Amino acid sequence: MDAALKKSLDRIFFPSSVAIAGVSNRMDSPGTLFLRSLKDMAFEGEIYPVNPRYDEVLGYKCYADIRSIPICPDLAILSVPPAAVPGLVRECAACDTGGCIINTAGFSESGREEGRALEHEITEALQGSDLRLVGPNCMGIYSSRGRIALFAGMFPTEGRASMISQSGSLSSITFMTGLERGILFDKIVSSGNELDLNCADYLEYYANDPHTKMILAYLEQIRDPRRFLATAKDIKGMKPLIVLKAGVTASGGKAAASHTGALAGSAEVLQGAANQAGIILAEDLGEMLDAAGALYHLPKCKGRKVAIVSSPGGIAVNAADAAELFGLELSTLDDRTITELGKFLPLQGTSFLNPVDLGFGGIIPGNYGRTLEVLDRDERVDMILAIGSAPASRDGDIGLISAITEEVLAARPKMQTPVVVILFPSGFVSPYVAKLYSAGIPAYLTPTAACRALDHYCKFHGCP
Amino acid sequence: MDAALKKSLDRIFFPSSVAIAGVSNRMDSPGTLFLRSLKDMAFEGEIYPVNPRYDEVLGYKCYADIRSIPICPDLAILSVPPAAVPGLVRECAACDTGGCIINTAGFSESGREEGRALEHEITEALQGSDLRLVGPNCMGIYSSRGRIALFAGMFPTEGRASMISQSGSLSSITFMTGLERGILFDKIVSSGNELDLNCADYLEYYANDPHTKMILAYLEQIRDPRRFLATAKDIKGMKPLIVLKAGVTASGGKAAASHTGALAGSAEVLQGAANQAGIILAEDLGEMLDAAGALYHLPKCKGRKVAIVSSPGGIAVNAADAAELFGLELSTLDDRTITELGKFLPLQGTSFLNPVDLGFGGIIPGNYGRTLEVLDRDERVDMILAIGSAPASRDGDIGLISAITEEVLAARPKMQTPVVVILFPSGFVSPYVAKLYSAGIPAYLTPTAACRALDHYCKFHGCP
Repeated sequence: MDAALKKSLDRIFFPSSVAIAGVSNRMDSPGTLFLRSLKDMAFEGEIYPVNPRYDEVLGYKCYADIRSIPICPDLAILSVPPAAVPGLVRECAACDTGGCIINTAGFSESGREEGRALEHEITEALQGSDLRLVGPNCMGIYSSRGRIALFAGMFPTEGRASMISQSGSLSSITFMTGLERGILFDKIVSSGNELDLNCADYLEYYANDPHTKMILAYLEQIRDPRRFLATAKDIKGMKPLIVLKAGVTASGGKAAASHTGALAGSAEVLQGAANQAGIILAEDLGEMLDAAGALYHLPKCKGRKVAIVSSPGGIAVNAADAAELFGLELSTLDDRTITELGKFLPLQGTSFLNPVDLGFGGIIPGNYGRTLEVLDRDERVDMILAIGSAPASRDGDIGLISAITEEVLAARPKMQTPVVVILFPSGFVSPYVAKLYSAGIPAYLTPTAACRALDHYCKFHGCP
Repeated sequence: MDAALKKSLDRIFFPSSVAIAGVSNRMDSPGTLFLRSLKDMAFEGEIYPVNPRYDEVLGYKCYADIRSIPICPDLAILSVPPAAVPGLVRECAACDTGGCIINTAGFSESGREEGRALEHEITEALQGSDLRLVGPNCMGIYSSRGRIALFAGMFPTEGRASMISQSGSLSSITFMTGLERGILFDKIVSSGNELDLNCADYLEYYANDPHTKMILAYLEQIRDPRRFLATAKDIKGMKPLIVLKAGVTASGGKAAASHTGALAGSAEVLQGAANQAGIILAEDLGEMLDAAGALYHLPKCKGRKVAIVSSPGGIAVNAADAAELFGLELSTLDDRTITELGKFLPLQGTSFLNPVDLGFGGIIPGNYGRTLEVLDRDERVDMILAIGSAPASRDGDIGLISAITEEVLAARPKMQTPVVVILFPSGFVSPYVAKLYSAGIPAYLTPTAACRALDHYCKFHGCP
């Protein structure tokens, strides 16, 4: 990639010094929240609060402007009224700052002439300098190893995923919901209006970043589509790129315009381009996280043949349908597998065909885990869909779900075949979903969600 | 409906006496669990355990067979080995019992000749009597007002929904997940192999039941399709009928055969028939509950025009897309609405167009609720999609979600316009989902789920 761009983004994601303009003693002002987030992340570099009205904020010496800071900061976070932004950008450009995050909103997305005029002024201020901008109208960056966070209360993780989001709240929601699914982030950029750096730049940076193994993107507008798609093609089959494209309808497009000033494109054009470039398109955050869960945790795909195991459950029949509808194939189990299962499963109320329905035999401790291990040895099985359902009672009778979860967790380390679990669409099962994910086992609430995610996973790995 | 059928089903759902064959002192034997479930439900009628090897079970006098019971029970639950079932059915037929629930599995669904032969024997035993059968291979019935339950641990509810399920576990999972969504049941039948009574009979009964306002069905095979569809047509537009049809693919069909011995049909034929009969088809339990949530809780639909309110959120853009994709229309807000909103919402980072994006102004207490009340007065708005998203932090920073939930709950009683809430796909939000549902406000985890449910809701009420 372009060396200058890489250098700028390196300074933005791994700054040794950060200036924050707009801090105050109001603890909930955005500038102060950025300062708190650096403390939460245990940022070890220099921190320079900027506000002419204070001598000190939260124990840090405060500077009247950028030029008063003794060094030139790698990164400046600007959280000041819109009219004050161009002047600060000019100061940063003058002193060779690496990047500015413009948190401030009220620019082109406002639909007002003043906003557009200010953006024009900011662009002019960049002329002749190497300064690059994140935003405006954004939450900036999360950099796990760089110790920078979008929001106060975030913390460093050992993440392998990175994200580009044209929505600040969606970037943070994804971080949070990702945690529950064991999808941890190395880098996130809330890119806002993308006046300067845009999603194609970030994608190029992530594509070349050895710490980024998977890329998620929430996009309202792809500002440099040719380069974005070319980069996507470069990483096709190597790093999954999952895009939630919003603004694909007339209504969504209008909403995007007032949100980040984006000019959105049509769904059909996008789907065609995505197929060519190997981009996984998600229809919402749920599908994005579902696909990410499979691609983040599962080893390389061997093929599309699934075995379904269930105790007890009509959900197995529904899962067989969903598998076929998403182009997965139900394995014809090996005769040895069926013989092995017959050694410990009761005859009545069970089925040894695929789906393997354990009936109430699933209640007998060990049966579920042994079934998984037998299926694991069957070479005709590429993936296992493990279903856990439970009879109802006042307290949710989570006993069987708990038992199945424990047996899946115990069996998994002995197995080679990828396993995903399907529980059922209820808040009761959330703790079990989280437990499974934290052991690297994707867990879904419906057969549809599981099979759609596995379809994305298979396609990415070239099992068509 | 047929008077004899109604009489039989009345005796099954509201028995004054129940015999249970197959009880024992093993607390986890199915027969004993049925006995316990009657106690949990506070069943007030006579209970007659049957087992020749006991004099007493759980403090109840135990009978050697049906004919030894001093009266003829309205309902007999048979949970005995398959070979013992025909004899007990003959005894029940001889003494004018209303119905038998055959819990036992191992009949035609086993694929074995003995199973089919036993079913044949059972059918013969019915000849010349008024006795009707539920099952075999089923969990029987839940009857809230009749004080009967499928599973131990269930309890009576003030339910308005009824269900037919050819899967026992799915019936109980639906009961349990329904609880979280405020979808409560008056009656459920786990109908199993449907050797005698079938889904068309149960549907006819529910269609004529004043306590049933909505019908859910999990079906692997529709055994009397002509009558089932005719009854569906009769209640079209009056009682929602939501069907999760499993076994619609070749793989699902095979799975259904070994699950309940069903011969499943094709998806295309079904969809055509469903459209004509006004049946709502769901692809899985998630979609079934999503649609049920809207139809159970919302008043009659006025039209397809939605207003979206969000604080803050890229999810609003995604929701605008989802609305249009599911045939909802974004309202053009009245000028008065925009003027009213401008009186209390900050200018910067917000949008008064539809979606109404409160930006971080949503954090100011009262703003979210006031926005809902202003939108409620706009005659151009038929429904409101209220989005609650939240920035991330270590503890899930659920503060904003909590605040928005409280404001929605406080505003709702003052409003006429149906409101549904979209949170985000995370276990963190489960308690808020439950809280909203219990106040009659449907809550969804993705825009897709919300808009698909509203589409079903609009179609049912004839807002095409």
